[in-house]
Amino acid sequence: MKRPENKDSSRGFLKRTLLAIMWSFITNFFTYETTKSVVVKSWTIGIINRVVQLLIITYFIGWVFLHEKAYQVRDTAIESSVMTKVKGFGIYNNRVMDVADYVTPQEGASVFCIITKFITTENQVQGYCPESEMKFRCTHDNNCTKYLDKAGGYGFGTGRCVRFDDSMKTCEMRGWCPAEIDYIKTEPMMEVENFTIFIKNSIRFPLFSFTKGNFLPTITDSYIKSCNYDHENNTYCPIFKVGDVVRYAEQNFTKLALKGGVIGIKISWMCDLDRDENECSPSYSFTRLDAMSQKNAVSPGYNFRFAKYYKMDNGTDYRTLVKAYAIRFDVLVYGNAGKFNMIPTLINMVAAFTSVGVGTVLCDIILLNFLKGAEQYKAKKFEEVSDKGVDSPTNRLYRSQLYRHEEKQSSDSGAFSLGQYS
Amino acid sequence: MKRPENKDSSRGFLKRTLLAIMWSFITNFFTYETTKSVVVKSWTIGIINRVVQLLIITYFIGWVFLHEKAYQVRDTAIESSVMTKVKGFGIYNNRVMDVADYVTPQEGASVFCIITKFITTENQVQGYCPESEMKFRCTHDNNCTKYLDKAGGYGFGTGRCVRFDDSMKTCEMRGWCPAEIDYIKTEPMMEVENFTIFIKNSIRFPLFSFTKGNFLPTITDSYIKSCNYDHENNTYCPIFKVGDVVRYAEQNFTKLALKGGVIGIKISWMCDLDRDENECSPSYSFTRLDAMSQKNAVSPGYNFRFAKYYKMDNGTDYRTLVKAYAIRFDVLVYGNAGKFNMIPTLINMVAAFTSVGVGTVLCDIILLNFLKGAEQYKAKKFEEVSDKGVDSPTNRLYRSQLYRHEEKQSSDSGAFSLGQYS
Amino acid sequence: MKRPENKDSSRGFLKRTLLAIMWSFITNFFTYETTKSVVVKSWTIGIINRVVQLLIITYFIGWVFLHEKAYQVRDTAIESSVMTKVKGFGIYNNRVMDVADYVTPQEGASVFCIITKFITTENQVQGYCPESEMKFRCTHDNNCTKYLDKAGGYGFGTGRCVRFDDSMKTCEMRGWCPAEIDYIKTEPMMEVENFTIFIKNSIRFPLFSFTKGNFLPTITDSYIKSCNYDHENNTYCPIFKVGDVVRYAEQNFTKLALKGGVIGIKISWMCDLDRDENECSPSYSFTRLDAMSQKNAVSPGYNFRFAKYYKMDNGTDYRTLVKAYAIRFDVLVYGNAGKFNMIPTLINMVAAFTSVGVGTVLCDIILLNFLKGAEQYKAKKFEEVSDKGVDSPTNRLYRSQLYRHEEKQSSDSGAFSLGQYS
Repeated sequence: MKRPENKDSSRGFLKRTLLAIMWSFITNFFTYETTKSVVVKSWTIGIINRVVQLLIITYFIGWVFLHEKAYQVRDTAIESSVMTKVKGFGIYNNRVMDVADYVTPQEGASVFCIITKFITTENQVQGYCPESEMKFRCTHDNNCTKYLDKAGGYGFGTGRCVRFDDSMKTCEMRGWCPAEIDYIKTEPMMEVENFTIFIKNSIRFPLFSFTKGNFLPTITDSYIKSCNYDHENNTYCPIFKVGDVVRYAEQNFTKLALKGGVIGIKISWMCDLDRDENECSPSYSFTRLDAMSQKNAVSPGYNFRFAKYYKMDNGTDYRTLVKAYAIRFDVLVYGNAGKFNMIPTLINMVAAFTSVGVGTVLCDIILLNFLKGAEQYKAKKFEEVSDKGVDSPTNRLYRSQLYRHEEKQSSDSGAFSLGQYS
Repeated sequence: MKRPENKDSSRGFLKRTLLAIMWSFITNFFTYETTKSVVVKSWTIGIINRVVQLLIITYFIGWVFLHEKAYQVRDTAIESSVMTKVKGFGIYNNRVMDVADYVTPQEGASVFCIITKFITTENQVQGYCPESEMKFRCTHDNNCTKYLDKAGGYGFGTGRCVRFDDSMKTCEMRGWCPAEIDYIKTEPMMEVENFTIFIKNSIRFPLFSFTKGNFLPTITDSYIKSCNYDHENNTYCPIFKVGDVVRYAEQNFTKLALKGGVIGIKISWMCDLDRDENECSPSYSFTRLDAMSQKNAVSPGYNFRFAKYYKMDNGTDYRTLVKAYAIRFDVLVYGNAGKFNMIPTLINMVAAFTSVGVGTVLCDIILLNFLKGAEQYKAKKFEEVSDKGVDSPTNRLYRSQLYRHEEKQSSDSGAFSLGQYS
Repeated sequence: MKRPENKDSSRGFLKRTLLAIMWSFITNFFTYETTKSVVVKSWTIGIINRVVQLLIITYFIGWVFLHEKAYQVRDTAIESSVMTKVKGFGIYNNRVMDVADYVTPQEGASVFCIITKFITTENQVQGYCPESEMKFRCTHDNNCTKYLDKAGGYGFGTGRCVRFDDSMKTCEMRGWCPAEIDYIKTEPMMEVENFTIFIKNSIRFPLFSFTKGNFLPTITDSYIKSCNYDHENNTYCPIFKVGDVVRYAEQNFTKLALKGGVIGIKISWMCDLDRDENECSPSYSFTRLDAMSQKNAVSPGYNFRFAKYYKMDNGTDYRTLVKAYAIRFDVLVYGNAGKFNMIPTLINMVAAFTSVGVGTVLCDIILLNFLKGAEQYKAKKFEEVSDKGVDSPTNRLYRSQLYRHEEKQSSDSGAFSLGQYS
């Protein structure tokens, strides 16, 4: 019965050894390592240090937290819906024009055109007729053979030279006849300046399930029906006079109506949802979007062509072609909303705290190079260790001393003090 | 011949000196500076330290890497193309209406309107006729002079008071006649509820040249032709019943059809391209975009006017004006895709490693202020150096000692103590 | 009169004490704390250290500063306005088609369709007629009762089986008659390949109030009027041949014209406003947006239906229904601009400087584990302090020694070596 005992005791030894190893591992694991610091008692560097830290803290509090609102989670995926309605009557060619006549597309979406000038070519039918442009002027069929079966001004050339009017002949073409004459000067419909644009804009921040519209609850319904937007007193009125919009975009209405152009109506929603809901309100601004048109002579302005189709009793198609000069309005909605949230607050606070330490880089440069007593600071800050002769006898000696030194530190020998004070 | 020798030797000396300086510069350059650390063997602070480190690592692995997928490079510039097609037949005013009658614009783009209610004014011609709105009611021309040549309800006032119907007179206007009467109650086209919207959506992530469509390859073509989207079983069917869409947006179809409104169909593509391509699939959600319309009494719903133009045999224009109440659908496509990439992985791993050190700030505060033996730790952690009397005799003494101390450290010889103190 | 004196002196004492405390607080506050460092003079680790630092600096200078331009503030909220104009004539069904016939919508916006194939059903009126689709084929009314009052192919079923043509009967329906027959094969209008698209694009970066257009000032107006875009020589020409666009998008024009499709014309503005204004110029690229259509058999291509409405003399409405196959073009404008700014430059420089220290993590691992003499370095780098027996007598002794030790360190006594080695 000796063996099992023996076994037991050897087992016990193993157990104890293992436990001891584990224990030492655990005690070594649960330690805390912090940097050894040198505290420099110097007015110069002390003040520099604190000023740099103050600057960093000021930057974080002032810019990152207060200005950039880094403590908020931000929703930039604004959902927006825009409806527009234009109102007003104009007179063009002695006819009264209403919204169905001069607005296109008619759906009342965020992009719409108000036509200011119509060049109308009535009763076009498929057939043969002279071109209307000067460059197709001719005296003989020979001048027109180069256009034969090629796309010309308003159709395919036939190669013949025909009478355009009493004074001139032009090459004949096949297409919708008669050809449009678009160089006649016509006046734009000046009543457009007094037309009103009504904008209904609903927005939603999906992250916060926050919904709002540009009809603020603080203003009454009767006000909305009768007001006109202006920069000072009616900043939340959703009805805009075309003339005002054009003026706010720093454009001249007459020029714009004559050539056409694109005006942007920007609605900006910058919402701080930590504040009162009523403070989340739209802000309107106006700009000319096709600014290039003003600088460049090629294709200035904005125009397009469309046709209305009719049928004769015998089934023949005919149409009215319209070349329309228009002011296009693009309603653009921007915005984002922020709300307090723990995660960004924590992350940014940690960033702020750790960034305070960044000042050390600057201060160290000053301390170790430009300050009186820099050598002294260097000596205190840096300790040197060299690998020279790591395995040479002297090094072995060095190491043994080092171990002794370490031993001294860790065991903090009583003998040391004895030696020291004996 | 001595001079050149001399010169040579002096040159050699210069060379050797320069080499020595360069050598010392190089040896000084290729050194490594690391912080001196204090290892605190304390259970309390050791456990706090490791717990804080664990929290930071957990945050980085759990949130930054697994949840936010910081190891991926992300493409947010999704390219999308949407085509839509509405199908269904309705009956309105005893006429069968098909897609060409009730959908506008007809191009099948991402935004389209289904008209649910038509207020039609037929055979309008340019002329003179009474206004139709109650506020233009009059008994005598004097009541109408204020409208003379001004834009009124449907045209320019003429200043005369004329017979509207048997029971009343209104001010006369010049414009498209007869004037629209838009306050008559009509029923919406209830068949719209059963119309289907077919959506074809192709997306592309240009960064990864990854292309996909909402017709998943896992579902058959015959299924696509016959299915209807629902939340549970047919989440990838690209055909949507209008009634379902309205219900999923938490709206009442009858109310919506009566007043009009804007519904958003959102398609979200959140793709992890490290996984199988088939897992990158669309997710549909529905919301009412003009939510404000529900809250506010002014201009609830969505409507617009358009006209169809005709010509009489004698060339006179006439038109049919339609005031259309419609449900507008906006198909909005969102999305981004991520794929493993070395650069963000490395940057974020470095960020994670260095952030582990942030815990030190907290632990130091605890260690140096709240722990038993804080004074002892402070003494070990901080060494003081003062600039007081940097140039005083005591300081000079201090410095000389300091230099000796430094010398001692660098030469670190056993002989040193002998030599110094013998 | 003694008391006031006494009072004064005690007051003076209090004052002096308070001042002394304040003074000591201030002197303690204006100190600077820097880490104590160990300088390792080892070629191996010295070179590793400098190489790692070099890599980090290279990354920051090369990638962050030069490539990502981190010294700039960036405006990504580009404002853009697009106008388009299509030119060209085609022949379809022996009729000359111009822009008003084949482009829709006609407003010249950023999204437009060029119709390549028309399936026209003329003179439709409301009434009763046979369905045109094969699946409604029937021999007897019984076959059709299932369609009674239900939406069928082109209208509501009446439940009767009627003669479609000489060879077959189909179920009757109520709706626009006759029903469209959309399975007849027709050829697309091949002239579309030579049509030109003229694009006018103005952009604005609101942050810098920078405006530019795609008509560069470096090219002349006469050039703009006559050029055609190509990849090599005319990269800034704003006129695009449809055939070229389709080819650049790697598509086959004939196939595309037959089935329809969506082509994206992307204009990218990447501007470095620190450089010359002329270097901020557009770059065009082309892609097929509905790429899915190529892969999938269901609903390939792009088509839609619209109608032109007419009136007979007796007031009856009739219409021409058109099923149009079209190529849709989406002009997409992207871009951002950067300009030097002090704030991002400073922040990123600080980030760069502090990141250089990150190399220490790697070097420490090597130094303390894999280098010859690691034990020696460990001994030098780490100092241990333990809380064992913080309040036991030995600890008290330890502490007193520690204080003495500290004293020793700060005063750096010569006596120490004497004591040690005597």
